[in-house]
Amino acid sequence: MNYQEVIFSVRDALATRDSRTFATLEKHAHPADIAAALSELPVENQCLLLGLASPPKRATIFGYLSSELQVEIAERFDRKQLAELFLHMSADERADLYNRLPEAQREAFMPALAQVEREDIRRLAAYPEKTVGAVMTSDYATLHPELTARDAIDELRRIAPDTETIYQAYVIDQDRRLVGTVSLRELILAAPGTRINELMQTDPVFARADAPREEAARLVAKYDLLALPVINGGDMLVGIVTHDDAMDVEQAETDIDFRKIGAVSELGKGLKEASIALLYRKRVFWLVLLVFGNLFSGAGIAYFEDTILAYVALVFFLPLLVDSGGNAGAQSATLMVRALATGDVVIKDWASMLLRELIVAGLLGATMALAVSGLGIWRGGPEIALVVALSMQIVVIVGSMIGMSLPFLLSRLKLDPATASAPLITSIADGAGVLIYFAIATTILGLPAGG
Amino acid sequence: MNYQEVIFSVRDALATRDSRTFATLEKHAHPADIAAALSELPVENQCLLLGLASPPKRATIFGYLSSELQVEIAERFDRKQLAELFLHMSADERADLYNRLPEAQREAFMPALAQVEREDIRRLAAYPEKTVGAVMTSDYATLHPELTARDAIDELRRIAPDTETIYQAYVIDQDRRLVGTVSLRELILAAPGTRINELMQTDPVFARADAPREEAARLVAKYDLLALPVINGGDMLVGIVTHDDAMDVEQAETDIDFRKIGAVSELGKGLKEASIALLYRKRVFWLVLLVFGNLFSGAGIAYFEDTILAYVALVFFLPLLVDSGGNAGAQSATLMVRALATGDVVIKDWASMLLRELIVAGLLGATMALAVSGLGIWRGGPEIALVVALSMQIVVIVGSMIGMSLPFLLSRLKLDPATASAPLITSIADGAGVLIYFAIATTILGLPAGG
Repeated sequence: MNYQEVIFSVRDALATRDSRTFATLEKHAHPADIAAALSELPVENQCLLLGLASPPKRATIFGYLSSELQVEIAERFDRKQLAELFLHMSADERADLYNRLPEAQREAFMPALAQVEREDIRRLAAYPEKTVGAVMTSDYATLHPELTARDAIDELRRIAPDTETIYQAYVIDQDRRLVGTVSLRELILAAPGTRINELMQTDPVFARADAPREEAARLVAKYDLLALPVINGGDMLVGIVTHDDAMDVEQAETDIDFRKIGAVSELGKGLKEASIALLYRKRVFWLVLLVFGNLFSGAGIAYFEDTILAYVALVFFLPLLVDSGGNAGAQSATLMVRALATGDVVIKDWASMLLRELIVAGLLGATMALAVSGLGIWRGGPEIALVVALSMQIVVIVGSMIGMSLPFLLSRLKLDPATASAPLITSIADGAGVLIYFAIATTILGLPAGG
Repeated sequence: MNYQEVIFSVRDALATRDSRTFATLEKHAHPADIAAALSELPVENQCLLLGLASPPKRATIFGYLSSELQVEIAERFDRKQLAELFLHMSADERADLYNRLPEAQREAFMPALAQVEREDIRRLAAYPEKTVGAVMTSDYATLHPELTARDAIDELRRIAPDTETIYQAYVIDQDRRLVGTVSLRELILAAPGTRINELMQTDPVFARADAPREEAARLVAKYDLLALPVINGGDMLVGIVTHDDAMDVEQAETDIDFRKIGAVSELGKGLKEASIALLYRKRVFWLVLLVFGNLFSGAGIAYFEDTILAYVALVFFLPLLVDSGGNAGAQSATLMVRALATGDVVIKDWASMLLRELIVAGLLGATMALAVSGLGIWRGGPEIALVVALSMQIVVIVGSMIGMSLPFLLSRLKLDPATASAPLITSIADGAGVLIYFAIATTILGLPAGG
C-alpha cells in the first residue's frame, strides 16, 4: 500500500469508525506510514483511530509518532488505555514517554501495571537525557554459556515475542556480566549439540550506560553492529542499543551540530514543528551576542577614522577584505567541527592540523591577494593595491587560524566544538580583519592613527 | 581485546611474521580494529600482515580499510592474490574497489575468477556513483512463495555463508519480481508447515536502483529496516542495501552537506586524509567567487562616499549592521538546508515557511534594533540612532528572507540546497545590508547621493 492509499484508507476508517477497515490497513501498510497519515489529522481523530487498532499494533503505530504528539495523545487517554499502551510499547520508547508525561498522570496509570513493568520503566527512565542509558532498551535476549545451540534456538524462539531482536544474543555469567555474544546465524549454522561458550564471540564491543549517546551511534557504525550491548558501573549487562535507534541518535546529533554551526541553539524538534516563539528564543541569543562582538570591528574603524577620511577609497575594500577572512575561517571551522564530531580528528592532532592549515591558508591568501591587487590598482593606484593585497594575505591566514583553532579549544574545554559557529567565526575574523587592514593602510600610506 | 592490545598484537605479528600470532588476533579482535591498527603502518607492512591472515578474514579486514588504502594495497597484490581477495570480499565492496582499480589491473585478474563472479562484479560496478545501485549488494537471500517455513529455514542455513544477512529474506515470483519479505524471526516462530505466502509481509518497502543513494538511507531509517530491497526498471529484485551500509551513506551525505554549508566543495574523503593540494582546490573556488560577490558591497559603499565623508560615524556601525543581516540569513539557511535534506520540509512548504520566517525575523530585527539604538545615541545622536535602528530592522528581515529562500530556490532548480552556504548567504546579505543602510542614512540625514 503506498502512502496515498494509506491516507485514503485512514480517512475511510475514520468515516466508518470500523475496526475491520483499520485491520486491513494494519495488515497492508507499514506502521510508520500509518503514523505519518495520522499526524496530518486533528488529535481527537488520532485518538479515535488508535482506538480502532489492535493493542500491539496501536503501540507500534504510536511509537512512530513524534514525541510531542505522543504526549498530547497520552494526555487524552484514560488510566486503563494508558496502562495497556505502556504494556505493549517497546521498553525504550515507553521510558521516554514516561519522562515526558505530567507527574499526576504517571501516578494515575502506573499502579495498573505489573510490578516488573513498573520497575523496568522507572529504571530506564532514570538515565539522564542524551546518555547511552537513555536510548537503550531492556528487551534483549540473554543466553547462558552452558546451553547447546539447539537449546539456545528454542530459548530465543520462546522469548522472541518480547525482545527487540533475537538475531544477536548476549551471553552472561551468573553475575549478569557480559562474557560474549552469539548471533542466530551462528547458532543455526552450528552443530545442534555445540555449546554456546565454544560458539560465542568473546571480547564483545560494548558501551557504558553513562557514556554520551553519540558513543553508541559511533560504535554501531564503526563495527557494523545489529545491536550494541550496554553495561553499568558494576559491569553488568543492562540493555542494548539497536541499529535503528543508533541511526536515530546519529540523525539527532547531526541536527544539533547543524544548528550550532548556523548559530541556532538546540531546537529539540523538527523545523516544521517548531513554534515562532521557540525559533525566536533559539536564534536571538546568538544574534544579539554577535552584535556586541561586532562592536570591536566598529571600534577598530572608529580608531582609524582619520585614515578613512584621507583615503575614502579604502572603504570600498572593507567588506571584501573582512568577509574573506571570515569566509576562510568559516570553511576551516566547519571542516574541523565535523571532523571532531565524527572522530576523524582528535585533540592531539591539533599541532599537525595547524601546520597544514597554515600552508593551505597561505596559498589561499596568495591567490586571493592576486585576485584583488588588480582591483586595487584600478580603484586607487599601486599603493592602495599593495595595502589591499597584503591585507588579504594576512586576513585569510588569521581567519583560517581562528576558524580551525576555536573548535579544538572548545573541545579541549569539554564544550561542544560546534559552538564555533560560522557566524561566530565570521564576527571574530571580521574584527581582526578591520584592525589588520587599517593598521597596514596607516603604516604604508603614512597617516597618523587617532580617533 | 581493546585497541591498545590490538596494536601490540599487530606489532608482534609483524616482528615474528607468524601466522599463528595473527590467527590469535583474528579470533579475539574485531576486524574494524585490526584494520585501524594496520592503517597506522607503512603500506608494505600492511601487505605483509594481510598475507598472514586467512583468506576470508583478510577480505573482511581489507573491507574496513579506507578506499584509498584499498587501492594502494591492491596495486601491490599480484593477479592470484587479487583474484582470491575479490572472491572473498562482499559483493558491494568489491564492486567499489573494481571501479577504483586501474584498467590494466582489472583486466589482469578478472580472468582468474569464475564467470558468475565476474558478471556479478561488472553488473554492480556499472551503477553510477551515488545511486542506490552503487551501494547495494547482490549477496541476499531469496525464497519461493510455495516453500514451507521449515524448508525456508533449511534454505537460509544452506545459503548463509554467502549472504550478508539471512535475517530478512525476499520472496520472489518466477520473474524475480519482489512479492513480499519474510524475517527469520517469523519463520522460526511459525508452525513448520506454514507456507511462505501465508507468512510473508506483502507490499514491502523498496527502492529503485537508479534512485539517489540518500533515498536508501532515508527509507532504512524511516521504516527501521534491517535491509532494503532494491529493484530495477523491470521491477526485478537486483540487490539489497543493508542497515550498516545505509548508515555509512547517511554519514557520507551529512559530511557533504556540512562541507557545502561551510562553502567547501565535496572532499570525497576524511579531513585527515585530504592532502594540502586537495584542500586548496576545494576551498579556493568559493573564496574567490565570494570576493567578487563582495564587490557589490564595495560598489555600494563607493556610491555613498559623500555620505560617509559627511558622517564618518556611520562607518562605525557598518560591520555590525551588515553582519547581523548575514548572521540572521546564515541561521535561516542552515535550518532550511538541513530540513530539506532530511525531508522535514518540502518545496511546497515554501509559502508557509516564508510567512513564519517573516514574523520570526521581524521580532528578531526589532530586538536587535532596540539593542543598537542606545549605541546609536551614544555614538552619533538621535538621528544616527534612528538610522541605525531602522536599518537593523530591515537588514535582519531581508537577510533572513534571502537565507530561507535560496535553499528552496536551489532545490527547485534541482541543485543541492546546501550550496546556499553560510558564507554565500553572508556575502549576499552584506551587499543588501550596505545598500539598505546608506540609502536609509542618505534619506534621513538628507544628503545627496552620488559617486
